[in-house]
Amino acid sequence: MDLSPRDPVWNTRVRNSFAAQDFMTHLGAELVHLAPGAVDIELKMRRELTQQHGFFHAGATSSIADSAAGYAALSLFAADFGVLTSEYKINLLNPANQPVLLARGRVVKPGKTLTIAKADVYGLDDGLQVHVATGLFTLVSVSGVKD
Amino acid sequence: MDLSPRDPVWNTRVRNSFAAQDFMTHLGAELVHLAPGAVDIELKMRRELTQQHGFFHAGATSSIADSAAGYAALSLFAADFGVLTSEYKINLLNPANQPVLLARGRVVKPGKTLTIAKADVYGLDDGLQVHVATGLFTLVSVSGVKD
Amino acid sequence: MDLSPRDPVWNTRVRNSFAAQDFMTHLGAELVHLAPGAVDIELKMRRELTQQHGFFHAGATSSIADSAAGYAALSLFAADFGVLTSEYKINLLNPANQPVLLARGRVVKPGKTLTIAKADVYGLDDGLQVHVATGLFTLVSVSGVKD
Amino acid sequence: MDLSPRDPVWNTRVRNSFAAQDFMTHLGAELVHLAPGAVDIELKMRRELTQQHGFFHAGATSSIADSAAGYAALSLFAADFGVLTSEYKINLLNPANQPVLLARGRVVKPGKTLTIAKADVYGLDDGLQVHVATGLFTLVSVSGVKD
Repeated sequence: MDLSPRDPVWNTRVRNSFAAQDFMTHLGAELVHLAPGAVDIELKMRRELTQQHGFFHAGATSSIADSAAGYAALSLFAADFGVLTSEYKINLLNPANQPVLLARGRVVKPGKTLTIAKADVYGLDDGLQVHVATGLFTLVSVSGVKD
Repeated sequence: MDLSPRDPVWNTRVRNSFAAQDFMTHLGAELVHLAPGAVDIELKMRRELTQQHGFFHAGATSSIADSAAGYAALSLFAADFGVLTSEYKINLLNPANQPVLLARGRVVKPGKTLTIAKADVYGLDDGLQVHVATGLFTLVSVSGVKD
Repeated sequence: MDLSPRDPVWNTRVRNSFAAQDFMTHLGAELVHLAPGAVDIELKMRRELTQQHGFFHAGATSSIADSAAGYAALSLFAADFGVLTSEYKINLLNPANQPVLLARGRVVKPGKTLTIAKADVYGLDDGLQVHVATGLFTLVSVSGVKD
Repeated sequence: MDLSPRDPVWNTRVRNSFAAQDFMTHLGAELVHLAPGAVDIELKMRRELTQQHGFFHAGATSSIADSAAGYAALSLFAADFGVLTSEYKINLLNPANQPVLLARGRVVKPGKTLTIAKADVYGLDDGLQVHVATGLFTLVSVSGVKD
């Protein structure tokens, strides 16, 4: 599997695009790791992110999983292509109320049009790690979209 | 398909549980329709909900789809059972930047333990309706969880 | 949604391609309905299609769902494009051991590169109809592939 | 993650159940590896398994992935519980026409009612290995079903 970036400034491009996702800012998500085909995003527990039982809402968990998978894909795209999520599936394995949620997005198969990525989400609590969710994502590269 | 509620106060219960989802409040989502096995949730466009191109973030779209599907399921649960999302899959059909996003959650197959629901999300703009996303959800009924 | 076929001989093309799927022949599947964006495939119960409890194997159910969705998509493709399944998700709603299984593939969103389709599978028994499965499919149009 | 079998004769039970899947016999599939929470199933290329371009039909690929995931789950079930697939999602990564298709089912999260498993399918050709598909599966343990 070839995970060489095609855009020399892929690193800056991914970071700038992430910073431009107002939704990630609204959730309080941070990009904490970036390598070709690999992006980690972290979310700290806040009441604003919970569902009715005090766990992270599946939507919050999925949102950072989606961004992690999407930016893992974008890191491999050529300079003039943007990224859109075409579809994804996610299994919520355990209810999560840890202080930190970490989503690890990894490219499974890069492609010119379609890139397949996976994301695993972990709840981190004082050295303990719980597998919170696992998902599969299809990302589309869109020409002429600034990312 | 039997869509009779088993809890006489299902209506109040779903509304109270939705009101207790701080994440929905944080997004600005509103429960706009409620019937046995059917829940609609609406989200008004705000910059805080967008990704890098100014469209609704897939995570925001999925979040209201998930809550709509989950509450459609909960509306049919017995009094002492709560709802958790086990997994879902969503296809993002069109990028969405309409003033209003409407998620329609509908139960496909009710069950004692597992309920299958679908959700369709539409972008609404001055009478025009765009099909933004479609998804399938597995909801679990959890005993002893207050909802 | 525009469901106009782009290939004047779409009907013959879909039927010929289905006839060339040796796997469908091996299962005993028949194409029983064909319209632009809509294909129904039928499977008669045989012991060779069952799992360990005597129900249709999820793989058999999924296979006709996949072909129904794929050919619903192909019916709308231009003449020199073939169809491949990129991904799908399927929920098995009820165990099926009816005499006939019917998969209804319908295009949800046609597209130049990606077409999204759904398929619902029903078990038919003497006028009774059970909803056996529901799925969502992403189909890719591939140029230069004869179909 | 606890992958201890709860049934002392789990090994025999999984092998007998697989042997009772007439559909697997019809496809020519073989169970080639079995450990607690892990099952590999192999399929040799035959014309009867192909779609219209001569590749393995997505339905054949998915069928062995489903059985591999299902039996990986069953290997951990207590003695009087059978296994049913509730839902799955699969991404077809590469068209496959290798001599051998190998599906590796692995439990991701065991559970009393729901078990989540993944399956990866590889095309094997003279030492070369191509990643053909990856999927996520929800398996249900059903009491009183002989498996």
